[in-house]
Amino acid sequence: MAKLLFSLSLLLPLLSTTTAAVGRHPHDSLSPDEFELTRSLITNSNPSTNVTFQYVALADPPKQSVLAWLSNPKTPPPPRRATAIVRLNKATHEILIDLVKKSILSDQVYSGPGYAPFTFEEQFAAAALPLSHPPFEAAVKKRGLKIEKVVCICFSVGWFGEKRKMEKRIVKVQCFDLDGSLNYYMRPVEGVIVIVDLDEMKIVGFRDRYRVPMPKASGTEYRASKLKPPLLPPLNGIKMVQPDGPSFKIDGHSISWANWNFHLSLDERAGPIISLASIYDIEKQKRRQVMYRGFISELFVPYMDLNEEWYYRTFFDAGEYALGQCAVSLQPLQDCPENAVFMDTYTAAGDGRPVKMSNTFCIFERHAGDIMWRHTEGNKNVPNTPITETRTETSLVVRMVATVANYDYIVDWEFKQSGSIAVDIGLTGLLAVKASKYTHNDQIKEEVYGPLLAENTIGVHHDHFVTFHLDLDMDGVANSAVKSNLRTVRSRDPNSPRLSYWTVIAETAKTEDDAMIKLGHQEVEVSIVNPNQKTKVGNPVGYRLIPRSTAGPLLSPDDYPQIRGAFTNYDVWVTPYNSSEKWASGLFTDQSHGDDTLATWTLRNRKIENEDIVMWYTMGFHHVPCQEDYPLMPTLKRGFELRPTNFFESNPVLKVTPPRIVNLTNCS
Amino acid sequence: MAKLLFSLSLLLPLLSTTTAAVGRHPHDSLSPDEFELTRSLITNSNPSTNVTFQYVALADPPKQSVLAWLSNPKTPPPPRRATAIVRLNKATHEILIDLVKKSILSDQVYSGPGYAPFTFEEQFAAAALPLSHPPFEAAVKKRGLKIEKVVCICFSVGWFGEKRKMEKRIVKVQCFDLDGSLNYYMRPVEGVIVIVDLDEMKIVGFRDRYRVPMPKASGTEYRASKLKPPLLPPLNGIKMVQPDGPSFKIDGHSISWANWNFHLSLDERAGPIISLASIYDIEKQKRRQVMYRGFISELFVPYMDLNEEWYYRTFFDAGEYALGQCAVSLQPLQDCPENAVFMDTYTAAGDGRPVKMSNTFCIFERHAGDIMWRHTEGNKNVPNTPITETRTETSLVVRMVATVANYDYIVDWEFKQSGSIAVDIGLTGLLAVKASKYTHNDQIKEEVYGPLLAENTIGVHHDHFVTFHLDLDMDGVANSAVKSNLRTVRSRDPNSPRLSYWTVIAETAKTEDDAMIKLGHQEVEVSIVNPNQKTKVGNPVGYRLIPRSTAGPLLSPDDYPQIRGAFTNYDVWVTPYNSSEKWASGLFTDQSHGDDTLATWTLRNRKIENEDIVMWYTMGFHHVPCQEDYPLMPTLKRGFELRPTNFFESNPVLKVTPPRIVNLTNCS
Repeated sequence: MAKLLFSLSLLLPLLSTTTAAVGRHPHDSLSPDEFELTRSLITNSNPSTNVTFQYVALADPPKQSVLAWLSNPKTPPPPRRATAIVRLNKATHEILIDLVKKSILSDQVYSGPGYAPFTFEEQFAAAALPLSHPPFEAAVKKRGLKIEKVVCICFSVGWFGEKRKMEKRIVKVQCFDLDGSLNYYMRPVEGVIVIVDLDEMKIVGFRDRYRVPMPKASGTEYRASKLKPPLLPPLNGIKMVQPDGPSFKIDGHSISWANWNFHLSLDERAGPIISLASIYDIEKQKRRQVMYRGFISELFVPYMDLNEEWYYRTFFDAGEYALGQCAVSLQPLQDCPENAVFMDTYTAAGDGRPVKMSNTFCIFERHAGDIMWRHTEGNKNVPNTPITETRTETSLVVRMVATVANYDYIVDWEFKQSGSIAVDIGLTGLLAVKASKYTHNDQIKEEVYGPLLAENTIGVHHDHFVTFHLDLDMDGVANSAVKSNLRTVRSRDPNSPRLSYWTVIAETAKTEDDAMIKLGHQEVEVSIVNPNQKTKVGNPVGYRLIPRSTAGPLLSPDDYPQIRGAFTNYDVWVTPYNSSEKWASGLFTDQSHGDDTLATWTLRNRKIENEDIVMWYTMGFHHVPCQEDYPLMPTLKRGFELRPTNFFESNPVLKVTPPRIVNLTNCS
Repeated sequence: MAKLLFSLSLLLPLLSTTTAAVGRHPHDSLSPDEFELTRSLITNSNPSTNVTFQYVALADPPKQSVLAWLSNPKTPPPPRRATAIVRLNKATHEILIDLVKKSILSDQVYSGPGYAPFTFEEQFAAAALPLSHPPFEAAVKKRGLKIEKVVCICFSVGWFGEKRKMEKRIVKVQCFDLDGSLNYYMRPVEGVIVIVDLDEMKIVGFRDRYRVPMPKASGTEYRASKLKPPLLPPLNGIKMVQPDGPSFKIDGHSISWANWNFHLSLDERAGPIISLASIYDIEKQKRRQVMYRGFISELFVPYMDLNEEWYYRTFFDAGEYALGQCAVSLQPLQDCPENAVFMDTYTAAGDGRPVKMSNTFCIFERHAGDIMWRHTEGNKNVPNTPITETRTETSLVVRMVATVANYDYIVDWEFKQSGSIAVDIGLTGLLAVKASKYTHNDQIKEEVYGPLLAENTIGVHHDHFVTFHLDLDMDGVANSAVKSNLRTVRSRDPNSPRLSYWTVIAETAKTEDDAMIKLGHQEVEVSIVNPNQKTKVGNPVGYRLIPRSTAGPLLSPDDYPQIRGAFTNYDVWVTPYNSSEKWASGLFTDQSHGDDTLATWTLRNRKIENEDIVMWYTMGFHHVPCQEDYPLMPTLKRGFELRPTNFFESNPVLKVTPPRIVNLTNCS
């Protein structure tokens, strides 16, 4: 939802001192100098006009040249380029910059449906308009509210089949009452619609349709400093200590830990991008490629209320609100444990100038008391039994939190010595609620689109679909997707007392159609393998996807939001690698018509066997709110694991030495 | 699988000193004195005969009297009784003991199908028989193995439709080669079948059917002390410290932590039993019931190989091998973190004498760097923004590990301040593999029932189904099960630009049939609610089940193992509370015919609306082994969460004070 406004403080011109010491890995995000260069080249070529920078990022260097550069340091580094999507004279330009030659390589006007993500600044400006709009002031007064206590945010308007020519770059502004509680999301000014044209930056529509009582402020406060007793007494202090410091090394934005190496960067739209993840195979005595790149491609959040004020709330948190730009500064000891190391990042402001964000990422070793593997050998005929062998689990976590208006998304990438990569998404923050006349369930005789959570407060049903772009490369780019179907087999052996068993029917996906998979509906394991690389006994090396619960879309396929979000129609898709296919919802998502999505790309049904392929995985949440989500939500976590499956000759954890013992003395 | 033999060392007569200081909570397991009393009463009444104690446990005190005693300490405590299932003169006796009057209340001979769990001693004895059995010695010799390097374990034989009269209390003994590696599970003596009559304690069947090469010993060692370089260098030390000690209190076997109270005990068959879990509602200023009792009722592990040596391997790890008696002594700093507290337990040996197990349970606070809830408020119109409020997650974990022959099951019950109870099952240990002539996939042209993991080593396909008995009591015993079905609704409003949405159709299960649920096949949330207790706005108080992935049975329903394991046919069942319905596979599981299971009880289709009800939840794993499972398995974790859903008026985590800060000085 609405990109947040607090970053204004970060929009001050950048001090030259902070521009120093930025790495030059081909996947490093743009440096402050590079943002500055991109901005000046574009603004200088359009001196008279006002340029809005909607998306500025590193232009992906060609995958082949990155891989060539990696395999041989002597090869010239890949070209260093920036891509910028800017709005000028009510036109959307896609501009490619050569950062080395300091020149504009191309400038194309995009006139198709859809727009780039909002900037903070245009959201600030649009959100301020109602507060000085007489009809809105009257609406506020009518409701007995104080205009100076009203605060607004911007919502994308979606697309509902309107003709192209009718389109404008508009948002709808939703306001809230701040009087008596900072938790204004629990107190929407319901029944009022304000429509703003972002290019004109003026209100082009207003309607005050109905009034309902304002939900009460009491009980919505969540700041510890403001909470009234009774409170639960605090637990005794507990702390993670690493006297010798962390076991990982950070060189620029490259991170190495245990058997893992990978690169971490921030993209304004995707958030964290993990790339070039490779694992050291101690048996083979070599480093092996696992993932070229992994990131959140889209985060689709449709609400389920058909009323005039709500029907359009079908948000694309990456494509419309730029998940990465919604990243928040992580609080040491709170958002990340004592042993965390933090990393800062830069993005571009609406005027193209670099913005520094402190503590965007934290990196820490997790030591949660889990067991990586164990066995107790108890057979009395075995010498010296019982023997207990246990290895405690220590893993590496990379965390980012993006606060998209009311919702806080916790994004954790976890690397394990077993070779697994686990991704967890935590949903917390504040619910989007609807003010209602109802104070008790017994009064409700109509569809209200969600449960009553408190007096005059409805928690509207909604979904979260997090779609990941997972460009796995198992020992090289030529890979295949394999569906291991578990099938019941009836015994054909009259002598066997058993009537049945299950076996695995492995099916290699030849084309994109073969790899459109709804998990949960079938007993299937999905793997990405290298058909050209086999283990000694002849298993193709690979990784398998282990999902944690599935939740598919429930909107009708012909409904407009679902056409735009059609990339959620399957849990898994596999496509041939294509540098232009990064964003499952399309490059221009705001008001898109769904004609440039993962679902449309795959209509070509391309060949994906023994090719450079990308797996797309969507993790779904159906959110039926409950009173425990009010006035804030305890974290709800979901995730998936990419687990080595015949990638190694044998279990790599066998080669893991237990961590050094910590002996703390004189602690007080 | 086979109950292990190492506990022999624990079977020494108990020192009187250890019998002291055992609590007297109605749910406390039997004390050493009580085990001793039970034993002596039974043996004294059968002086001339040899009595085998197959299962000795606390007889559940009537639920109503426990609840009465809890609500009013003046009421007399519930009767203290023991139940013992013993084998004497080839007959199975169910004996009930009054521990206060020190008398036998009843002694019933059970003559139906099925037998009680094996004792360790009879397994030791049976496993030793082949080693002095000439035909077996010949078979070993024929294979070029040394008989003194051969070690054996016992397997239950299952039931495959044989007539009752043909039945004997038998096991099949599988032997392994210990020569060159302690990890003998990777090296089975394949092709030999030894059948032992446990009552006669003699070999009643033998067959040497075929020979295959013995899988090699090299590469199977897993002891750190024996591992050869290269190894991954150790990570820097990392440690959890709690200078003021843990925040939980243990009184006897009652544990209190944060807002939670519960009782922990060990049952020889079920393992950990969590009972009387209640949470303090700080808003209501009262303690509220959540769960009367929760435990693992059965753990069904069918293998998928139809050959003569394998078809019968359809194990019930609780009902046949007594999961609780397979508990292993947890290693401080290895199986549990630095801040763990340990609890000892007692069970009965085969001769009825009490056996002490040290460190059966560990209890610790988990501080994994997770976020319990957070929000960053960024709207610039809000005073003093940005505001970041975060609470780190600290939870309480109760852990037990049961090593059932090759498999190690890690059982974690986790309690959260949000009101959630999360259960995690971790599978690790050693795989059950089959020796095979094959050394490469290219040679395999037949069904071999699993993948080749190493030369001559097949990882046989199998399942793990963990079935939980969850007797939830939401503010009292009269509860209902509610299915919240998420259904797509087509818009009937021609004016709405939206064509569809989803809503929740709540359905209260009236009878057992209504509550047989296959999760994953439908978008449904299952809750247990108290229809008589509503929140202020009128939502029934309850908890919902949040599963983590689902895997249903794949055996044919008419296949004998599936008839015995029919309780896995649905992920969720709900039954009226019935003190006799504890074991989903029936009381006498070994060689059972499936006529006393959750699936047969529910044929009565009893009323479950607004009744004292029990939810049964089965967590399934389909295990397609891979080379990373060889020679030992990295932990594979799965679990579920019981999450408050309109149980509280609002989010209880709001009332959680951040833990005290730890300041460590002079640590070195």
